[in-house]
Amino acid sequence: MKSKWLDSDWNPTNMVGTFSYDKLFSRDSADTPLNPVAHAKYDFAVAYPAPETLPMDGLIQALQTAVDSNSEKVLAEMAYYPQQLGAIELREYTVQKLVTDRGFSVTSEELALTNGSGEALGLVIQALTNPGDIVLAEEFVYMGTTNQLRRFGADIRGVAIDDGGIIPEALEKQIIDLNSAGDKPKYLYTIPEHQNPTGSTLSEQRRRAILDIAHKYGMPILEDDCYVDLRYKGETQPAFRALDDSGIVVYVASYSKLLAPGLRLGYFTCSPDLMRRALSFKIGSGPNQFAAVAIEGFLKNNLDLHRDNFNPILEAKCNSMVDALEEHFHNSGAVWSAPQGGCYVWLTMPEDADIASIRDEVFDQGVGYVAGPNFEADGSGRIGKNCARLCFAFESVEKNSEGIALLAQLFKQHGVM
Amino acid sequence: MKSKWLDSDWNPTNMVGTFSYDKLFSRDSADTPLNPVAHAKYDFAVAYPAPETLPMDGLIQALQTAVDSNSEKVLAEMAYYPQQLGAIELREYTVQKLVTDRGFSVTSEELALTNGSGEALGLVIQALTNPGDIVLAEEFVYMGTTNQLRRFGADIRGVAIDDGGIIPEALEKQIIDLNSAGDKPKYLYTIPEHQNPTGSTLSEQRRRAILDIAHKYGMPILEDDCYVDLRYKGETQPAFRALDDSGIVVYVASYSKLLAPGLRLGYFTCSPDLMRRALSFKIGSGPNQFAAVAIEGFLKNNLDLHRDNFNPILEAKCNSMVDALEEHFHNSGAVWSAPQGGCYVWLTMPEDADIASIRDEVFDQGVGYVAGPNFEADGSGRIGKNCARLCFAFESVEKNSEGIALLAQLFKQHGVM
Repeated sequence: MKSKWLDSDWNPTNMVGTFSYDKLFSRDSADTPLNPVAHAKYDFAVAYPAPETLPMDGLIQALQTAVDSNSEKVLAEMAYYPQQLGAIELREYTVQKLVTDRGFSVTSEELALTNGSGEALGLVIQALTNPGDIVLAEEFVYMGTTNQLRRFGADIRGVAIDDGGIIPEALEKQIIDLNSAGDKPKYLYTIPEHQNPTGSTLSEQRRRAILDIAHKYGMPILEDDCYVDLRYKGETQPAFRALDDSGIVVYVASYSKLLAPGLRLGYFTCSPDLMRRALSFKIGSGPNQFAAVAIEGFLKNNLDLHRDNFNPILEAKCNSMVDALEEHFHNSGAVWSAPQGGCYVWLTMPEDADIASIRDEVFDQGVGYVAGPNFEADGSGRIGKNCARLCFAFESVEKNSEGIALLAQLFKQHGVM
Repeated sequence: MKSKWLDSDWNPTNMVGTFSYDKLFSRDSADTPLNPVAHAKYDFAVAYPAPETLPMDGLIQALQTAVDSNSEKVLAEMAYYPQQLGAIELREYTVQKLVTDRGFSVTSEELALTNGSGEALGLVIQALTNPGDIVLAEEFVYMGTTNQLRRFGADIRGVAIDDGGIIPEALEKQIIDLNSAGDKPKYLYTIPEHQNPTGSTLSEQRRRAILDIAHKYGMPILEDDCYVDLRYKGETQPAFRALDDSGIVVYVASYSKLLAPGLRLGYFTCSPDLMRRALSFKIGSGPNQFAAVAIEGFLKNNLDLHRDNFNPILEAKCNSMVDALEEHFHNSGAVWSAPQGGCYVWLTMPEDADIASIRDEVFDQGVGYVAGPNFEADGSGRIGKNCARLCFAFESVEKNSEGIALLAQLFKQHGVM
C-alpha cells in the first residue's frame, strides 16, 4: 500500500548534510575510517580457507532437508529471535564435536554461539578487561584480537615464542618481572594450534607447563582454537581446555575456517559466571538461525568427509607455496615456517630487509601479504619489519607458485633481497 | 588426524570449577542472568511475524540460484570475511528498496548492514551517548532499545503520546522544561510506523512538526522503521528520513519482520561521520553473507508478492484478536488499539487493574503477554501496570480467538476484570 507522497512533489525540509554532530559524539567514539578491502592479483594477504572446498551445495541441501523434514519447527525457530546462547541444535552438535575432536565435555548451556569467533573474543575481553590491564599474548599474534584488546584499553605485552609457540620459561620470567614492578598480567591470549600468523602449534608438554604457570599466578588463558580443524599433517595437540577443568581456560573456536567466514558462526565456553558477564555485553540477540540450521544439518552427516576433502587441498596449496619459497628464496637468508595445517606460512627475511615499508608498492605490483608489524602484540614496531604472513589457503596451487616467484622478483627489485 | 591423547588415560590437571574470577571481572561487566525463553500455550508475548508466511523455500531457492548462476563469485564472497558495511549486493538492493518504499536516496556506501536492527541501534547509541545523557522516547517504547540505552548510561525520559504517537506540542514543552532546568536531550528515539508496543503511526504532519522541533533544539532523531513493511490497512507515512536530508535523522530498519528474525539482518543509514563513529563500536566483521545472499536473491524477485501474501494474513490475525477483545472485554472498561499493521495490539485496562503483577500466573495458566511496565521509557513503574502488549502476528486466527477468551476468563478469576 503505497502512499501518495511517494509520487507527489514533496521536498525534504532541510538541506543535505547541514546538521552537525560535532558536539554530540560520545567520548568513547572514534572517527575510524572504514577499511576498504582490496585484493592483489596474488592475494596472500587474506585470512580465508580455500573457497573451492566450501560446501555451499551441501549447506543449502541441509537447509532444504531440515525444512522438508520438519517445516513447522524450522519456521517457528526462524520466526523467533534467537536465544542469547544461539540455536540449541547447533549448540548440541558443537558440544558433541568438542567431545570427539577436542576431548572435553561441556553442556549445551555452557556453550554460546556467536557472530563469528570475533564476537566471542570481544565479549570475553570486555568481561575481563579494565583500561590499563596488562594482557599477554604471543609476540606475533592475530590482529583482530589485538585491535579489540586495545579498543577496550588493554596494555598488551608480547610473550617470547619460537617455532613451537610460547616458551613457558620466558612466560614465567615475564610474569615474575611484572610482579617485581608491582604489576601482574590479567590473562593470556593464545592461539595454540596453527597459530596466526606464525603457524606454530604448542606441544602438550608446553601446554601443561603454561597451565601450571597460569594457576600459579592466577592468570586465565583465553584459548583461540579456530584453526584446529585445518590439520593435514602431524598430530593435533590437546586443547588447554581438555587439560584443565578448573575454569581457568576460556575456549573460543569457530566454523569460519572449517566451513566459511561468511556464515559468521563462532562459539565459546567458559565458567558460567564469566559467561553471564560476557553475554551481558552482547548487542542484539543470538547469531543467525539460518546459517545455524545449515551448519548443523551439513556437519552432522559430513564432517569427516568434508575435512578429508579439504585438508589434502590445503596441504597441496601449502606445499606449492613452500616449494616456491625454496626455489626462489633459498639463497636469500630468509626462513619460513613449515605449517602442518592452518592457512599461513610465516616468512622471516634477514633482519635488515624492511618488507613492511614496501608492502603497498608490492601489493600494487601484484602480490599481497600482511607485514609483520601488524601482528606485533605490543604494537611497538620494535620487531617484525622483516616478516610477513603469507596465506597459502586461498589462491590455487598454480597461483601460489607464480605469486611467490613474482614476490622474489619484486623483493629483489626493491633491494630487500 | 586424531591424536592418541584422545584415547589415552590423561586427566585434566585441575578440578572442576576451582578457579575463581571474583577479582578479575571488568568494572563494566554485570552478572546478568540469561533470559530463559518460555512460551505460553497462547503466546501473545512474542515479537515475531507469522511463521507460516516465512519464505524458507524461497530463500533456499534464492541461495541455490545464486550458486548455480555464479558459483565462483558466491564461493569467493562466502570465503571472505564480510566487509564492515556488509554484502554489497544486499546493500544495493536495500538502497533501491528505500527509494521505492521510503522515498529517499542514499548510496550503498552510506548504508551498513547489521546483525539485526538491534546491532544498528546499539552502535548508534554508543556513538551518541555518554553516561547521564538525556534521551527522549515514546513513554511506552520497545524495551530492546531502552535496555541498550540504559546499558550505555542514558537517562531516558518518556514523551507523552496519544493514539497518533508522539504529541509534538508535548515534546517541545518537555524540551523547554529541560532547558529551563539547565538540561537538554541528546536525541529522540522513535518508532514512527506501527509503534512497538502501542501500534500507533505518526502522521506526516506530526513528523514535520517533530523535525522542526529537532532542528530548533539541535536534537537528532533516531528513527526505527522496522515495522514499515507490515501494513495491511491505511497509508504508509513518509519516513522522517524522507522528509529531511540534513543528516539529523538516523534511519534504522530490518529484514527481521519482513522475512524472519532468525536471519539477523538489519541496516542503518546516517551521516557519514556518525556512521564511522558507530561502526567503530562494531565487534567482529559484517553480518552473515549466507543470509544476505538469500535475502537479496529472494526479495529482488518476490518482494511485492511476499508482502501481498503476508499482509492479508496479518490482517486476519489482527481482526481475530480485535474481534475477540470486542466479544470478551466490551464491558470491562478496557480499551485497545486498532492497528493498521505491525504485530501488536495495545490493551489498556482500567487504571486500577494491575495486570502486571499477575502476569506470571496468567502465563502459567496459558496466556502470555508483555506487561506495560516493561515498555516504560523511564523505567519508573509510574505508568503501565494496567497495560499489556498482545502480539497478534504469531499465533493462528483460531488461537488468537481462544487465547483472548481465556485471557478474559483469567482476568476475571484474578479479580482485575
